[in-house]
Amino acid sequence: MEELKDYYRKIAKYSSASALLYWDMQTYMPPHAGPYRAQVISEISSYAFKMSIDDVLGKMLNEANPENDIDRAIIKVGKKDYEKYKKIPPELFEETMRTATISEQEWQYAKPTGDFSKVKANLEKLVELNRKIADILGYEDEPYDALLDQFEPGMKAKKIEKIFTPLREFTIQTLEKIEKEGKNPPLVNPKIAVEKQKKFSEELIKYLKYDLNKGRLDVSAHPFTNPIGLNDVRITTRYIEDDVKNSIYSTIHEFGHALYALSIPEEFYSLPIGSSASYGFDESQSRFWENVLGRSLAFWKGIYKNGIIDVLPELKEHTVEDIWRWVNEVKRSYIRTEADEITYNLHIILRFEIERALINGQLQVKDLPDIWNELFEKYIGLKVQSNTIGCMQDPHWYGGSFGYFPTYSLGNIYAAQIYQKLREEIEFEKLLEEGNFEPIKQWLSEKIYSKGRIYEPEELMTLVTGNPPSVEPFMNYIKEKYSKVYEISL
Amino acid sequence: MEELKDYYRKIAKYSSASALLYWDMQTYMPPHAGPYRAQVISEISSYAFKMSIDDVLGKMLNEANPENDIDRAIIKVGKKDYEKYKKIPPELFEETMRTATISEQEWQYAKPTGDFSKVKANLEKLVELNRKIADILGYEDEPYDALLDQFEPGMKAKKIEKIFTPLREFTIQTLEKIEKEGKNPPLVNPKIAVEKQKKFSEELIKYLKYDLNKGRLDVSAHPFTNPIGLNDVRITTRYIEDDVKNSIYSTIHEFGHALYALSIPEEFYSLPIGSSASYGFDESQSRFWENVLGRSLAFWKGIYKNGIIDVLPELKEHTVEDIWRWVNEVKRSYIRTEADEITYNLHIILRFEIERALINGQLQVKDLPDIWNELFEKYIGLKVQSNTIGCMQDPHWYGGSFGYFPTYSLGNIYAAQIYQKLREEIEFEKLLEEGNFEPIKQWLSEKIYSKGRIYEPEELMTLVTGNPPSVEPFMNYIKEKYSKVYEISL
Repeated sequence: MEELKDYYRKIAKYSSASALLYWDMQTYMPPHAGPYRAQVISEISSYAFKMSIDDVLGKMLNEANPENDIDRAIIKVGKKDYEKYKKIPPELFEETMRTATISEQEWQYAKPTGDFSKVKANLEKLVELNRKIADILGYEDEPYDALLDQFEPGMKAKKIEKIFTPLREFTIQTLEKIEKEGKNPPLVNPKIAVEKQKKFSEELIKYLKYDLNKGRLDVSAHPFTNPIGLNDVRITTRYIEDDVKNSIYSTIHEFGHALYALSIPEEFYSLPIGSSASYGFDESQSRFWENVLGRSLAFWKGIYKNGIIDVLPELKEHTVEDIWRWVNEVKRSYIRTEADEITYNLHIILRFEIERALINGQLQVKDLPDIWNELFEKYIGLKVQSNTIGCMQDPHWYGGSFGYFPTYSLGNIYAAQIYQKLREEIEFEKLLEEGNFEPIKQWLSEKIYSKGRIYEPEELMTLVTGNPPSVEPFMNYIKEKYSKVYEISL
Repeated sequence: MEELKDYYRKIAKYSSASALLYWDMQTYMPPHAGPYRAQVISEISSYAFKMSIDDVLGKMLNEANPENDIDRAIIKVGKKDYEKYKKIPPELFEETMRTATISEQEWQYAKPTGDFSKVKANLEKLVELNRKIADILGYEDEPYDALLDQFEPGMKAKKIEKIFTPLREFTIQTLEKIEKEGKNPPLVNPKIAVEKQKKFSEELIKYLKYDLNKGRLDVSAHPFTNPIGLNDVRITTRYIEDDVKNSIYSTIHEFGHALYALSIPEEFYSLPIGSSASYGFDESQSRFWENVLGRSLAFWKGIYKNGIIDVLPELKEHTVEDIWRWVNEVKRSYIRTEADEITYNLHIILRFEIERALINGQLQVKDLPDIWNELFEKYIGLKVQSNTIGCMQDPHWYGGSFGYFPTYSLGNIYAAQIYQKLREEIEFEKLLEEGNFEPIKQWLSEKIYSKGRIYEPEELMTLVTGNPPSVEPFMNYIKEKYSKVYEISL
């Protein structure tokens, strides 16, 4: 058992190096160092991957003597990973990686022009390669499930459909009602110098008690969280002069991810159970901190009461209620990453439906722009004039990720379900007004963070809330909150 | 041959990851991430080391078909490295690394107290281990030569002695003469805010045309240069409010190292010939840029004329001659890294004599503080009151490095010898006044940087200047310059 753990600890060191190489690439690396850096990352990650499918590991997993439940969980999760990755022939894995790298570069160049013909051929290849991988990994109902399982273990497309279809209808109706009957939030869109926004983000993470002995806040084009090593989980944000909401909520969102990673027990570190339960669960925490907590009136009352707002007199001159309504403004728009909490899920549902059809062979890549534009108008009600802000806006598909998108909305849904339980047990609003986040962190830690990846998401959700994942709590949360924000009855 | 090169390229990727892990540790890593980071660096560097002594490499080196002189140089240098490291039993290598890590940590804790008893036992072990390594590596005259060869290939202690002994006597006399007869430089010791010093360093590297597409300037406790990857060589400096000379010359010094690393031909990258010729040669370039060029009157005239000085009005209010005399102030002091260009070599000669005696078995570790203090008073003329500023000031020995120190003074000596040749062929002062460094860089590139590690230092020096390393040019350089700085006849 100890030998097995040591082997995992060894692999983790290479993953740690890779993580730092990636973090540096997005933050401080000199511009011309990119091509060589890509080679270094590829070498080190393939080596880590090779170790993770080495026969030696299979033997150790079979022969290890677990001494307790934790050991048994390590073996169980370890075996699932091992058997899954072992199935994929190394040539197929490498071809997929290589194609994904080229395709993502192509996409980066082509995105500003929106010229889909430039990215079509490699996207077709990636769909083909992913279908092959799905066939090899195996599935019961449909190929897409095999890919989904990599991000959300145990989840099936049919289950998601059951959640997403009512959510889609609910969202479309809610949006209409808000637009027709809602009282618009006040216009608060001040230009705020980058330096000041930076100061505010720094104050925010101190206020949330992000431990800077174990983390950092830096700047990157796309905000991200990177667990680089033990006691080293870093976040980034971005500052745009006329969009202060962007930096505030990027910072809180990434803080949520980092808190999860930093709260997983140290003795799980490097081991198969030493990460978050799933992509959806990970996202549930970033969304919980960003939206449920960070976009609540009580949170903003705390920001005002504890003087954090003093850094931004441009906001302070407004009432706390106005600021709260402003940060919860609902507005149809083209870009997923800029969408509000309600519309956001429509962006995801559209992507889920499309990628599921692509992988299951019901849709061809050449038809992607048309179907995108058609569904976009149907769900979100806007005409897409360019692929730049349409089906070419996100890197996921062009980087070879299929099955990732739904975890974003699952995150929203999980967050609301967790919140429903948490507020039964904890005086949530009172604590936020006081700026006392410790009891909330402790609750989340005990119920979720401390479990690492021992449980699959459905199991964990049932343990935490008594129920498997369900969309009702999210819809109730939206109704309750936005009835107040827009002063209507939803 | 291609296979051999690819193998080296593979090793280099792990070294690149290690280099970044180290750089990050010294610059941006969160404080509590240290212990795990040390483990990651150790894992990745040992893996790279294992590859560099793998039988596979030996076989490839023997069987490769060189097609040209470059290939032949790769094989020659590669074989020398391989055979050298292959000789050291892995257990001995690992024990040395492990002891060095523990010892260096001990030293870090004990240094502020100056309590030598705290570091003695492990230092004894390190001396013993290094003597073992020297015996295994082999030598003609004395064990110390085997260690020296790792830093300065082909160099012998006897040769160094022939250079250092006259240099020691010359330096002691020069110091006395300057103190007795010299006209002291004006007192210019302004307090300058860190932000302003930072701006000046940034302007300086732009002025010197350090390519920020391939490098960065950051801050660390001890300034260093780190070649992280192809097109990625980073430098650090430090800012102390009442010591602006420190930041200026740290920046220029590290720039010199970086320029060398960035100017080695790209096709040598990753290969055994793809680094500087030796530690001494590397240091010759940092010293050339820092002292010969950066502390010259012509350089400062350029700084004034090209408006770089405008960032520091606290200096600008003085005449350029006063600033030049001030940056060349000579003063006996305890700390090597703060020593002036003349006294500096006494700090090194003392260390060379001591470490040579330790490794050759003529001196015991327990007697180190006494012999240090005795020689320090004899050479530098100051009584050492505490080991903190005495034999415990530098990390080298406590980190297991013996044979490294003399390369610092060799750097000074090489720099002067190269300079003597360069000024015969190039209008050095005119170019400095114009702020035009290109012809100087081109000359150095053609003669030195472009050769990588093809030649051993003595060979390379003979190619560049027509003579093997000699101390005369350095003594002439000091006499000429300091006669002017101190307005005496040296």
